[in-house]
Parts: sequence; C-alpha cells; structure tokens
Amino acid sequence: MKAARLYEYDPAVNVQLKIEDVASPTITAADEVIVKVGAAGLCRTDLHIIEGVWKDIMDQGGNLLPYIMGHENAGWVEDVGSGVTSVKPGDAVICHPFNACGICLNCRYGHDMYCDHGLFPGLGLDGGFAEYFKTNERSVIKLNTGITPLSVAPMADAGITAYRAAKKAAKLLNPGGYVVLLGIGGLGHIALQVLKHTTGARVIAVDQEPAAQVLAKELGADIVIAGGENLVEEIKDLTGGGAHVAIDFVGEYGTENLCWKLLRQGGELIMVGYGGEVRVPTLELVANEIKIGGSLVGDFVELVELMEMNADGKVKMHQTEYSLDNINLAISDFKARKFTGRGVIVP
Amino acid sequence: MKAARLYEYDPAVNVQLKIEDVASPTITAADEVIVKVGAAGLCRTDLHIIEGVWKDIMDQGGNLLPYIMGHENAGWVEDVGSGVTSVKPGDAVICHPFNACGICLNCRYGHDMYCDHGLFPGLGLDGGFAEYFKTNERSVIKLNTGITPLSVAPMADAGITAYRAAKKAAKLLNPGGYVVLLGIGGLGHIALQVLKHTTGARVIAVDQEPAAQVLAKELGADIVIAGGENLVEEIKDLTGGGAHVAIDFVGEYGTENLCWKLLRQGGELIMVGYGGEVRVPTLELVANEIKIGGSLVGDFVELVELMEMNADGKVKMHQTEYSLDNINLAISDFKARKFTGRGVIVP
Amino acid sequence: MKAARLYEYDPAVNVQLKIEDVASPTITAADEVIVKVGAAGLCRTDLHIIEGVWKDIMDQGGNLLPYIMGHENAGWVEDVGSGVTSVKPGDAVICHPFNACGICLNCRYGHDMYCDHGLFPGLGLDGGFAEYFKTNERSVIKLNTGITPLSVAPMADAGITAYRAAKKAAKLLNPGGYVVLLGIGGLGHIALQVLKHTTGARVIAVDQEPAAQVLAKELGADIVIAGGENLVEEIKDLTGGGAHVAIDFVGEYGTENLCWKLLRQGGELIMVGYGGEVRVPTLELVANEIKIGGSLVGDFVELVELMEMNADGKVKMHQTEYSLDNINLAISDFKARKFTGRGVIVP
Amino acid sequence: MKAARLYEYDPAVNVQLKIEDVASPTITAADEVIVKVGAAGLCRTDLHIIEGVWKDIMDQGGNLLPYIMGHENAGWVEDVGSGVTSVKPGDAVICHPFNACGICLNCRYGHDMYCDHGLFPGLGLDGGFAEYFKTNERSVIKLNTGITPLSVAPMADAGITAYRAAKKAAKLLNPGGYVVLLGIGGLGHIALQVLKHTTGARVIAVDQEPAAQVLAKELGADIVIAGGENLVEEIKDLTGGGAHVAIDFVGEYGTENLCWKLLRQGGELIMVGYGGEVRVPTLELVANEIKIGGSLVGDFVELVELMEMNADGKVKMHQTEYSLDNINLAISDFKARKFTGRGVIVP
Repeated sequence: MKAARLYEYDPAVNVQLKIEDVASPTITAADEVIVKVGAAGLCRTDLHIIEGVWKDIMDQGGNLLPYIMGHENAGWVEDVGSGVTSVKPGDAVICHPFNACGICLNCRYGHDMYCDHGLFPGLGLDGGFAEYFKTNERSVIKLNTGITPLSVAPMADAGITAYRAAKKAAKLLNPGGYVVLLGIGGLGHIALQVLKHTTGARVIAVDQEPAAQVLAKELGADIVIAGGENLVEEIKDLTGGGAHVAIDFVGEYGTENLCWKLLRQGGELIMVGYGGEVRVPTLELVANEIKIGGSLVGDFVELVELMEMNADGKVKMHQTEYSLDNINLAISDFKARKFTGRGVIVP
Repeated sequence: MKAARLYEYDPAVNVQLKIEDVASPTITAADEVIVKVGAAGLCRTDLHIIEGVWKDIMDQGGNLLPYIMGHENAGWVEDVGSGVTSVKPGDAVICHPFNACGICLNCRYGHDMYCDHGLFPGLGLDGGFAEYFKTNERSVIKLNTGITPLSVAPMADAGITAYRAAKKAAKLLNPGGYVVLLGIGGLGHIALQVLKHTTGARVIAVDQEPAAQVLAKELGADIVIAGGENLVEEIKDLTGGGAHVAIDFVGEYGTENLCWKLLRQGGELIMVGYGGEVRVPTLELVANEIKIGGSLVGDFVELVELMEMNADGKVKMHQTEYSLDNINLAISDFKARKFTGRGVIVP
Repeated sequence: MKAARLYEYDPAVNVQLKIEDVASPTITAADEVIVKVGAAGLCRTDLHIIEGVWKDIMDQGGNLLPYIMGHENAGWVEDVGSGVTSVKPGDAVICHPFNACGICLNCRYGHDMYCDHGLFPGLGLDGGFAEYFKTNERSVIKLNTGITPLSVAPMADAGITAYRAAKKAAKLLNPGGYVVLLGIGGLGHIALQVLKHTTGARVIAVDQEPAAQVLAKELGADIVIAGGENLVEEIKDLTGGGAHVAIDFVGEYGTENLCWKLLRQGGELIMVGYGGEVRVPTLELVANEIKIGGSLVGDFVELVELMEMNADGKVKMHQTEYSLDNINLAISDFKARKFTGRGVIVP
Repeated sequence: MKAARLYEYDPAVNVQLKIEDVASPTITAADEVIVKVGAAGLCRTDLHIIEGVWKDIMDQGGNLLPYIMGHENAGWVEDVGSGVTSVKPGDAVICHPFNACGICLNCRYGHDMYCDHGLFPGLGLDGGFAEYFKTNERSVIKLNTGITPLSVAPMADAGITAYRAAKKAAKLLNPGGYVVLLGIGGLGHIALQVLKHTTGARVIAVDQEPAAQVLAKELGADIVIAGGENLVEEIKDLTGGGAHVAIDFVGEYGTENLCWKLLRQGGELIMVGYGGEVRVPTLELVANEIKIGGSLVGDFVELVELMEMNADGKVKMHQTEYSLDNINLAISDFKARKFTGRGVIVP
C-alpha cells in the first residue's frame, strides 16, 4: 500500500516524509481491526514529532524510525480479529487515537488516556497516513448514518482534545459567566462550537489572525478580539472582573503566563497547548483561589459524544483537504498558517 | 392602590377575585423594598390557591383571607428600607418569589427555598396583583439594560421552576443522550429553551395540544410527539431503550406513573407538576437503578442565571397579557387553555 | 468436582440444593479465568432465586435448571485463557459478580452493571457453590497481600452493593448531617463501616434484632435504635427535622414507605432491598424536594475500592462459615436469621 | 478594655505589640454582634501582617495602624444589634473571620470569601486580641453544648482553612488512593484529622520536625516521613507512581515546586501556604494532566461543618495557651517553632 513515512527528525521541520509502497497491516491478534483509511487529520503534534520533541518519550533510547505518522484517522473496517463483535468489514468508523488495554485500573476508571499499557499509533508505531491502518476494537466508533470518514477524521484527536477541554469548562460555567478561548485554530474552533451548545455562559474568542476571527464570529462567539498588550485589562473590563474559565490552546509564546491573569477569583485555566513554562506566585494562587490544570486528548466516550454532536449538526470540522501525495505541501502550508481550521490527508 | 384580592376558596375556581382599592404597602423594616408592579404572571399555583389546595399549609388553622395574590412579579423599585444598598428607587427589578432570611443554615448552604423563616408573598400574604408590592432586598434582581418588567415577570416563578429542573437535567445529560419533557406549557417551553442551550443531548417534547407542539418545534425541540397510549414504546424506540432524563411538568392525570417507565437503566425522573401519586415497585427502582425526585421552584442564583440567558436572547417567555381589571378573564382563559405559554397581569 | 445445584423453584424455599459430582469448567475463550473456589457468600438473592423470583427475568421462557448457584466468589486462579495477562495461576482473587463485555457504551462509561451483554454466573448459569468456577479477566481483582479468599468472599456482592449505596450517600452528606440505615444485616453492617470512614456525618442504625443492634454499636454507629411505630417521629427528633439520607436495605414489609418519610427537605432515599411498592404523593416529592432512587450491586472499581478499605482494616465482613456439604443448613439458618452478618460456603 | 495593638511593621518581626487600655467596641448597626473574647488563635498570617506583607493590600495607600490584631476568635455574645435574631447575649460562639455582606452575587453563590464588600477584622481593622471584639450576625456560629471558646478559637481560621483544603481533597480521593500533606503544623494537623474521617484514602504526612511527626502518627497518619532530598522518589515508591492529591501547607522554601512532582497522572495539588513561585512546564501540565490550585480560608458552612466534627470528637485543635499579657512571648515562641499545633491567646 502507499504510505508516508518519517525517516529523520528535523527541528526546522524542513525534512520531507517519503511517499512509498509498504506492506499493508494484517490481523495478528483477536481484538485487532484493520481500517481502510478514508482520511487522516494533520496535527500540530505531527510537527512536534518531526521536530523530535517526542523522540525521547517515545523512542526510549532506541530508534523507531522510519514509521508511518498520522493519528487522526477515520475510514471503513477492512478486516477484524476473531474476538471482534462490535464492528464488521464495511462499517464506517472513526478511530480513537490511543489503544487502551481496558483491563488496568486506570482503564476501569474510564481514564483511557492513563492506560498502563496504551499505544499511540502514529507516534512511534505506524499510523494513518497510508491506505490501511491497524487499531483495536476498543478504539473504533461506528459513524452515524450519513457521516463520511472524510468529514470527521480530525475529530479523532483535534476534535476530542478540544471537546474534553470544553466539557471541563462547561462544568464550571453558569449563564452570565465568561469563558475565554485563546487560539481559534483546529482545536479552538471545535471548543467554541461545543461550548455554544453546552453552556449558557458567554464565549470570548481571542485570535490575532483575521481569518480566525471571522470563523469565530460565524461559529457564534459572543465576543471576538485580537488580543495583544492590553488583553488582561480588556478581559477584566468585558467580564466585570475576570473570566470564570480560560482555555489556552497555544501554551507558549507568552500566552501561558497571560492566561491565568485573565481569571477572576475562583477561576480556572485549562491548558491544552504546550511549549512554555507557567510561572505563578503562590500568593496569586491562594489569594485569588485560581486553578491551573492541563487537559490531555480525551477518553473514548468523549469522542463518542463529540460524534453525536457532529451527527446532530452542532459541531463541524472546518478543514482543507490534501491528497496523500501532497502531504509535504500540507505540512508546509500548516507551518505557514495558510489554512484555518484543520488540514486533512486523503489517501 | 388598585389590587385583586381573594375572599374565598372554591374547588371549581369559579369564584371571582375582587378588584378594589386598598392601602399601598409601606416600608417598616431596614431590608424591605417596595416595588411598583410592572407585570405579574398568572400561575397554575394561583388556581390551586383558589381551589384551597394550599389552605391548610399556609393558613395553619387560621384564616388569611382576604389577600392579594400574585407571586411572579417584576417592576421598578419605589422605596427601600434604611439598610438597603444594592438597589435604589427607579431600578427595574424582578422579584424572587420567596423571601428567605439569609441567616439560617439552609440559606447559608444556598438553599433559599428551604429557609427556616421564609415567606411567600402571594401565598397567604399580599402579592403582586396590585399596583405596589412589598418584598426584601435579598429577593430582588436588577434587570439587565433594555429588559422590561413586562417581558420577564413570569420568569420569577414559572421561569425559575423550569430553569431549576432543566439545570438538574443538564447535569445528567451528555451529547447523544435524550431528555423527555412532558407538557410544553408555561414551564415546559422555558425548560426546552434552557436545555437547548446548555446540553448537547436531544430534547423530546410531548404535548397533546397542537399549539404547544408548534411552539415546541419553533423553540428547537429535536422531536415533538403527542404522546398517548403507546408513549412508553414510542420513547423506547426513539431513544434506543429509554430516556436518560424525563421532566414531568404535569404530575397528575396518570403522567406521574408513565414518566418513570420512559427511563432507561440509570435514568432519572424530575417531577415538577403535582397532584397524583407515584407508585413504583422497589424491584423497578433497584433493577433499573432509576431515580425519582421532585424539584421545588428555584434558588435566587438560578433566577439570576435565567435572567442572564434572557438578556442574551437565549430564553424568552411566550406570554399573553391581561390588564389587572381583566384578571378574572385571564383566570378563566387559563383554565380553558385558551393561550399557550404564560398569562401576565399588567396593572 | 463437587457442586451444589438447584433443580426446582420453591416459593417457600424448602427445596434442597443437590450436592453432586459434576464436570469442572474448562477454558474455552481467550479472556476466561477458572478460579478454585476458596469461599462463596450466601445472599438473600439466593433465596429469591430459589423462590423463583428471578425465573422469568433470567430463564426468558426457557428452563436453565439445574445449575450451580453462588455469585459471591473468591479463591485462587487455576487456569487462564490465552489473552489473559493481568492474573496467573496461583493468584488469590475476588470475583466481581457480573461479567461485563468492556466494549458496549455502558461499559465504556464505567457502568459495568448496565452492560448490554453481561452475564451473572450464579443466576441462570453456573456459579461458585462448587470447587471450581469460571469467570473472565475483567471480573477478577487480585487480593492484597495477606488477605484470604475466605475472609472476603461476600464482599463480591453483599459488600459491593452496600459499598455503592454508602458511596452514593457519602457524596450527599456533610459533617453535622444524618444518614439512617434500615437493616444492619449482611449489607447494612458493611455500609455502616464504609460510612464511618468516608463521611463526617452521623450514622443512625435501625434494626429490631438485638444482635444486630450490638453489632451496629460495635462498628461505630452514632445512634442505634430498634425502630417501630414511632420511627418517623423518633428520627425527626434525633435529627432536628429529618435525615439527609436514608438507605433502605429491606425494601419490603412496609419499610419502603416509611423511609422517604424520614427525610428532611432535599433529602434522598437510596433503595437497596426490594419486594414492596413505593407509593409517594407527587406533592411530597415536590414540596419537600426529596429523591428516591435504587442502587444496583456495584461497578468493578467499587469492589476494588472496598477491597482496599478491607486491606486497610477499615471494613470487615462479619460472617459465619458452613461447608459446601452443609449448604442446605446454611440456607435454613439464613431464613431463620440464626446468624448476624453473612453466611459463607467453604468447599 | 485591655487590647494588643500593632503600631509599626517590621520585616524581622521583632517589634512588640503594645498591651494597652482602649475603648470597648459598641453596637452601631442593626446586624452587629459584640463578643466577649474567650480565646483568639495566633496565626502565621499574624506574622505576615507584622512583616508588612499585607500592608499594600489592606492599607491601600493609607495607614490603618495602630489596630488590634487577632482573626481567630471565639467567646460569648455580649451585645447585639436590633436586627439580630439568631444569637443573644450569653451564647457561646465562634466567629468566621470574614464579614461577608450576604447580598452580592458571590455571597449568594455561597462564596463568602469572594464577597464584594467583605471585611476581615484583625487585618486592617480591630480584631480579637482584646477583651471584646465586634463582628456581624452572619459571621457567628453558636457552639454546640459543652464546647468552650478556648478549645476551638483557632478553628476560626487555621481550622477552616485546613478543612476547606481537606474537603476539596476528599472529593478527589477514593479508597486505595493517596494524599500527601506537607507540613503538620497548626493547619496540617487539622487537615489530617478531617481526611482520616472523610475519605478512605491513605494519608501520608511529611514534616521534618520530630514533634510534628509524633503528632501525625498519633492522629492516624497512615505513613509519616521526614521528606528531604529524595521526597519525589520516596512518594512515587510509596504510592506506586505518585499521589492522587497533595496539599502544600508551606508554599515556600522550595516545597512549592516539589509538590506537583509528587502527583501521578490526573493528580491535583492544593496550595494553602504561600510565599514562593510555582514554575511548571506546560508540557508537564498537559502530558500528566495535573492541576494546581490555591485554597483560600473557607466559607461559613465549612466552619459549621468543622465545628460539628469537633463536637463529635473527630477533630481537635492541638494548642498551647498564652495570656493576652504574654502575647509577645507567644509570637516569639511561634517564630522559634517552640510549640506544635497552634498558639492561643486568652484575655
């Protein structure tokens, strides 16, 4: 089959993935599922993989290269292991990005992302920038009638990550409250839609890109601003003292230490983007009783819930498509912010 | 001032309120607030008061008649006691229906409705079917700019009661889930709007009245049905096994024992209407692990939240207006279901 | 192997189980686990099975008799299927009573008890009143060092059911609050211990049996009473207006309609026992805003948590042992309330 | 009356409070309450006040000196304003340290500590290191029968602050889980007792002082360690991968950046002590999905709950008493860590 593989890391992300012909995956265990890839989303984490950021964590001293990247996959079931009963060949599915074991205590508590034995296809082992992709039964979700893999693939990671953060935020918000979203890109525009349907609070979207601002308005943001030097004062004014919740989809370039300053007493910052270092005086934490916490991808049921919202027309992925042959162009366009929303690779 | 007073109970609700001239209320304590009534909603509880249902609970052996009914009040502050600092004459306000003390432990836990010393103007003491109305500082909420008392008065009770039930429901619901509303009247149509903005779940509206069905559709119900003999099977089919939550705004005529049968395993019934008796085998409760609980008006902050949703254009009261002189017509129209949504009395 | 099988239903529970020699279970699927039974608890549900109460639900028109009863099992792993990695022969384990699939949406939400494809060994298929017992990997929990199967077997069902109810109660309770336990038997005495360690609220134990009262006192109940005609007044007095939570381990003989009368405004009744029918006016539900809900066994992680409390010495099963040969004596002693706490069968 | 007043700030805390005769407070508003002080706890915040740490926040450009310090007060009601109904002269009471208005939205949500108009007697206005002390009705809690002001005074701030943090922690913990307490002093020893009664999780107490370690053991800590260089590895070993919750009662000297390293994936750090700056990479926040949040004193109902636990014998203040004349000795002993638990001033 045709696949795009990474052969070397490059901090500048100028290296090209090689489009080549490799053996298709085959079933080797009872719970495995082979998916004919319909589409695979391109994620900022893919850039970080190429940069080598995840090298030490995933490779653990060895060398896993070359492998097929791509962890936001949707398609049609091609083949299943002997123990698989919930899907059959031909079913359209989306794939949760993390293969959790289902047995360890973290899995039993529903914390799929904390699984003691989890694997992340596309990070250190073959993913979905290819014609076929192997995952397991516990990771696949059948698509609702009428939903195509192409229309939802990036939901598998960009979508679920935004959804989990938005769901956490919604639990903290009441009508009359304010939530600030920093960054209305592939993740932020999903969180915005989720929040508009699941909380009566007001959503303030912050992004410097005019195209992202337009998208935020279209998707129903109550207030859209560019941010900049006076963001703290601007938010305090707009909200009468500070936001109840802020979600930082950037996490670097200084936003990571701007975000907690946007909060009112008792407020909470949800960190999704990463790269920078948070520095906060303990006196601020205590006197304002604010909270700062990370959000990590999302659990299986969160992807199920997001797919239900998508099927109901409440949340839609804004995306730009590239053929698998053009994946290197997609990567360079992504770096150059040439598209809003998400880039998607179609084999 | 002009006021409508109840002089005798009548189970058939044929008795007329007397429109007469009475002394206006005056400030006698530091925390009191006199409101010039802008509008006062007409509630099913008003019918029950006339019927004498609340007689024993409120009168406690004595006779409180005659008094001015009306517990869904909004208007403009006319005068305030010496200790009042949060509102001043001229402010447009809506009045929480229950005057809670703020000192007892129930109040301190935020359970205004469980106050050890609470009073309910309009039930056993003078309410708002009049030109002026007396309440206390802890019960008034300033209206947002541009909101008129007339447009929101029934929010004070019909609205808040529906809001509380909807908020309870929203906490139990996820996208892909189902909530059934029984009765799309003065309360149900508010709960419907609240749910559409605060949960990703699907809303099934049940009402036999064609006008209520039209209203439900307009307000965004995902599914609208008339109900009837096969309601249980119909809901099980539509929801793939039963609703996650049901809210019963009727509570009598048999719906009270239909509702819990609509639930799936782990489901919850929220009872708002009353009149009937629930009969449920313990084996049903245990084997299906369902829950049945009442919902009682709402706390002060819930009315605040509802007013914020109203100010944001998310929830609107569907109502029909009558002058204070025509209050007895309003009552008979209500009995005859001649209007959808809520009836409102304007002095 | 030796096993005790049920051959016919008998509403009076006078029928005897037959002790006979049957084939031992063998591994036939990758996720199966064979357990050498160390002990198996005797449950009120076993009496209900013999009575035929579960016949229609489990048999579904067919006839599953004869089969080996026993659904509270602990022992040592004897053999495992090819896919099992978390336990190995020789490991001491306790068995969650319900074999859930781990794949359906209910399982993914952690609701093991709502599994779409679950099986309940001991109810309609072979259980643990035998020398060997077959279950699956997802149902076994390794015992902590030093814990013997004999000391914990009834935790598998009596324990977990009490624990789940107690955990629900603890979430609703604050220091200064009151929880009433009706029935200090095999379940109630576990709930009492769990509550004493997980909530600052006061525990009121109600049981007519002097031996149960003594046990309740020993286990730390703040107040122990016999109940009787004036229970409602007694509880209202003791609690200053009613309990915050009540757990009914009886569910029949009239307690099912006494319990909700014990609650204060906003209180909640958790129903564990079953048999009777709850009859409650909707006006009570609404005006007092009480809630009534069933509790069904417990999820896997709840059994894990209970086993941790047991390992820490916080919760201990009070039990009486019988050999497998004497199982019919154990059943008649249980009927006659000849022991407090739980009866346990040792093969 | 006799009172101890602060006349100047001193970063080294060598300045002495002046014991002098001042006018007793008198009732000037309807909701005021004068308390004859029975005892007043000495708090680390008192040291910070003397240091001048709170100067800019409280004085706001002016000079509030001299004033009577002391914000952990209990005693007997001496006089009440005309509107006070819940207490009367002679009642033994403890005083919540913050006088909240009860009217603003934060108060209505139960967030007393976020009150828009709150005052903190003892910080910038006269407190309780005196014979009499003025507060308001909303701040006093009647003591349970048999409880003396002397035995509970430091509960008013040290106690409530520890309780709030412990209550937050308890909500996050399950049996089998681990919570680490850093610092077993005036606050830590209360949190320890609260946790032992309200969660089935294991409590690990960390303190370098041998006397504090002894106290921790006596109060039931499951594990007591001194901490030191290898604390992170030690905790990871003891807990099998990290604590579920950590509470930092120190917040400076480096513990503030040690604490979040003690957490497992999904863990939460509750910061109570303050002084240092937290520095945490966003990648740590996200990849481990940890949360860091401050805790600020506590709400009125939390003090009520703590007093109930105290009345039930579950939580006791470990304290050393000094006469008001010896307050400067108490302060220097506190600085020198000459007593464990709390110092208390008796007028």
